[in-house]
Amino acid sequence: MTTLKIRPVAIDTYKENVAYLHRDCPLYHSEGFQALNKIEVRDGKGKPPVVAVLNIVDDATIVSPEELGLSEQTFDQLGVEAGCPVSIDHAAPPSSISAVHAKIGGEILGREDYLRICEDIVNNRYSKIEIAAFLVGCAESGMEREEMLYLTEAMVATGDRLDWGEPLVVDKHCIGGIPGNRTTMLVVPIVTAHGMLMPKTSSRAITSPAGTADTMEVLARVDLEPAQLKEIVKHHRGFIAWGGTANLSPVDDILISVERPLALDSRGQMIASILSKKIAAGSTHLLIDIPVGPTAKVRSQADAMKLRKLFEYVGDRSQLELEVVITDGRQPIGNGVGPILETVDVLKVLKNEPDAPMDLKQKALQLAGRILEFDPDVRGGDGYRLARDLLESGRAWSQMQAIIEAQGRREASLQPARLSHEIPAPDDGIVTGIDNLQIARIARLAGAPLEKGAGLYLHKKLGDRVTAGEALYTLYAEYPADLQFARHAAGQNSGYLVGARA
Amino acid sequence: MTTLKIRPVAIDTYKENVAYLHRDCPLYHSEGFQALNKIEVRDGKGKPPVVAVLNIVDDATIVSPEELGLSEQTFDQLGVEAGCPVSIDHAAPPSSISAVHAKIGGEILGREDYLRICEDIVNNRYSKIEIAAFLVGCAESGMEREEMLYLTEAMVATGDRLDWGEPLVVDKHCIGGIPGNRTTMLVVPIVTAHGMLMPKTSSRAITSPAGTADTMEVLARVDLEPAQLKEIVKHHRGFIAWGGTANLSPVDDILISVERPLALDSRGQMIASILSKKIAAGSTHLLIDIPVGPTAKVRSQADAMKLRKLFEYVGDRSQLELEVVITDGRQPIGNGVGPILETVDVLKVLKNEPDAPMDLKQKALQLAGRILEFDPDVRGGDGYRLARDLLESGRAWSQMQAIIEAQGRREASLQPARLSHEIPAPDDGIVTGIDNLQIARIARLAGAPLEKGAGLYLHKKLGDRVTAGEALYTLYAEYPADLQFARHAAGQNSGYLVGARA
Repeated sequence: MTTLKIRPVAIDTYKENVAYLHRDCPLYHSEGFQALNKIEVRDGKGKPPVVAVLNIVDDATIVSPEELGLSEQTFDQLGVEAGCPVSIDHAAPPSSISAVHAKIGGEILGREDYLRICEDIVNNRYSKIEIAAFLVGCAESGMEREEMLYLTEAMVATGDRLDWGEPLVVDKHCIGGIPGNRTTMLVVPIVTAHGMLMPKTSSRAITSPAGTADTMEVLARVDLEPAQLKEIVKHHRGFIAWGGTANLSPVDDILISVERPLALDSRGQMIASILSKKIAAGSTHLLIDIPVGPTAKVRSQADAMKLRKLFEYVGDRSQLELEVVITDGRQPIGNGVGPILETVDVLKVLKNEPDAPMDLKQKALQLAGRILEFDPDVRGGDGYRLARDLLESGRAWSQMQAIIEAQGRREASLQPARLSHEIPAPDDGIVTGIDNLQIARIARLAGAPLEKGAGLYLHKKLGDRVTAGEALYTLYAEYPADLQFARHAAGQNSGYLVGARA
Repeated sequence: MTTLKIRPVAIDTYKENVAYLHRDCPLYHSEGFQALNKIEVRDGKGKPPVVAVLNIVDDATIVSPEELGLSEQTFDQLGVEAGCPVSIDHAAPPSSISAVHAKIGGEILGREDYLRICEDIVNNRYSKIEIAAFLVGCAESGMEREEMLYLTEAMVATGDRLDWGEPLVVDKHCIGGIPGNRTTMLVVPIVTAHGMLMPKTSSRAITSPAGTADTMEVLARVDLEPAQLKEIVKHHRGFIAWGGTANLSPVDDILISVERPLALDSRGQMIASILSKKIAAGSTHLLIDIPVGPTAKVRSQADAMKLRKLFEYVGDRSQLELEVVITDGRQPIGNGVGPILETVDVLKVLKNEPDAPMDLKQKALQLAGRILEFDPDVRGGDGYRLARDLLESGRAWSQMQAIIEAQGRREASLQPARLSHEIPAPDDGIVTGIDNLQIARIARLAGAPLEKGAGLYLHKKLGDRVTAGEALYTLYAEYPADLQFARHAAGQNSGYLVGARA
């Protein structure tokens, strides 16, 4: 069989493997390869082949006719030196694709099917269109709750799994969608001050104006190596770090890279995504927060209850002690929206300052209280009071400072961005609605989360009286164009409904 | 707004638009672009933007930080000179994607929805994963017959449409799956000898051992320009050419490029694909051939009837006079499988040689007769006899020679490939089954259609008596490795069932 010399091509194709073949390569025509075909690349030493989508190249400075180019990720996967001989062949569709066809046909898949699908995905044997077919198949027929369990198990099984060596490792997760909802930065210091183990990895914002990792990053480094995290846990029982480096449920990351641009809303995928990450991260006890409101992800109490049952079903069968709380998602939590503006809110609560936002404090205490009750030594019903004591005594604040020092304090400014603009109430009245989605959109237009100080600060919340012209919120932006975009969006729809006085 | 200098990157990404941005480009981080994001590229002169998937580059010889690279197709679409300034922005999802979500949710889409989807697809606003979502959505919920009509109309409307300036332009189409079924090369000379207009464009083989274009290419050039085709039609009333160059139903080509690797089997897509191509090609009268058999695409008479009704429904509403014939698809047609071996069969029939395969001749006469009856001057029921007269009188053969000359005769050999091997009957008995799929697979392994002389020649058909060791068929291959692959496959499963003597 003819071989080609392998060559790295310095193109980052993210989670898609791409190979580059010159059009004059003798194999191109004789073997009937075509652009966008999938090929298998073998190093001839018996390692499993790497699968890649083929691009045809007409420029010998990128690859010559005797070479096969591989994009950065693909080259790393193959793991051979540049110049080594490789052979290529047409890639057969992954064997698990028959299960995807069955799912598209409306069938219910079994545990073995999901495992085979996840194995093929993690080994890069699925093209993006095959992943899309799997996701749409799951979204359209829906998934039975057993299938959600099997998918969760398969996603855990095809990645690494952390073991903290203790029987009680707590975590929390909010399904998201509520601006300003930065409770994690309060819950972690409270429950670790009690001595519970809470090694918290969080995500950066993707579609929201701030993720917990973006916000914590205002105060401390969040991109820490596993060894550093283990060391911090030993001394402080917890941390708040970015979870992007560990190989936990890697299939989840791959699915999300396709699911997000498609804006697919699949309940089964969401549950498997959340629970697989938590199980892989070594959590034993998990609190799930489902905010409900007309502009939250879950819009009715009935839908929240259904979702809760699904979480409980999968959690109970995964050796995960799982509690679900359904919370008020009718409006943003706290006043700040954007990394620095939210950090300021969090610090006020931790320092027990008189103008600390009460809704953020109450919600954090509610969640921390439920987590504290995972401790067998805490009586049922005593969690909230214990959390409040830990916060109001200043112990949580001391704990947070220790965690910040351990992660690496950043001497960043806590000033909001330099440009600002107030959005006024149109009439006298009472705030009867705040649109989470519109508030998040305006904050992103203002530059959050990339500009840490950008976002908005809410002066009024649901039920507050306002007079015409009084500020509903203040926009903060670093650049004039950003402020302009945000002002324009707020001018069209402020996100606030002001009703007649009751 | 910051601009970048446009640069062509000599990479062929086929039907997917790809843009290349250097990792050190100032826009990369500040604007939050990521690999595999979709971006819009604008030339600043008001032309519609080109949408492309972003790859990040770490090699300034491919693109420098001041440049934006575009793959070959993408650069052509933008249509500006290298070095011109362009701006880039995040691409919003195409507006028609909401209709795709509705389809995934099980809704029935309307005429306007399909038109918007096809417009977005033809303008390259859909990524491959969005196309996959649309196809899986259609396959999974199924399409109502109205939807098949709307999709057909939309696919015609978003491409070019030929007009031959005559009221009767005939065509035929077989839904495929039967090896050796090369009736088009007989039907065209027969019906054009009668004076009917039959400008026949055909495809090359994609998954089969030979397409009509591959087979005609043994005798004549098939890659002709539209002007040449018009000229040939003027003198000879028809041709048999490759249809790949015209912009007829371009959405179909894009959908197929995603559908094929997914191996999706969607009835609605198939009907829209076939009919949109024929309507766009200017056909007014169309004969559809649906072979039925246990290893054909359609396995039961009942399924064939359902499919026929769908074709009739869409055809009748598209100003297309459409007839459907359901034919015997229980075994290959003729004896040869592969371009040259099939050409030899066709020539034997045209020249009325005594050893011409009768089944190929009978089927061609049956189809040609039905098409001749589209002529208002041909009495219902007289078509078959007329077709037989045209064939047996030698007029069809003269007509075929004239068409070959007009397209450009190729002085190619009609010898089968140089290596051969006979596959023997395992026992005495009667041939009770021939597997179309396995015969096609073995012929492809032998090298068809890339090697024109490769394939196989059947010595026995259904109902023939065989004695143990007698040849069922002969394999032909150009290269030892191909023969070896084909022999191996035939050794595992010859594709023949030999039963006890009746």
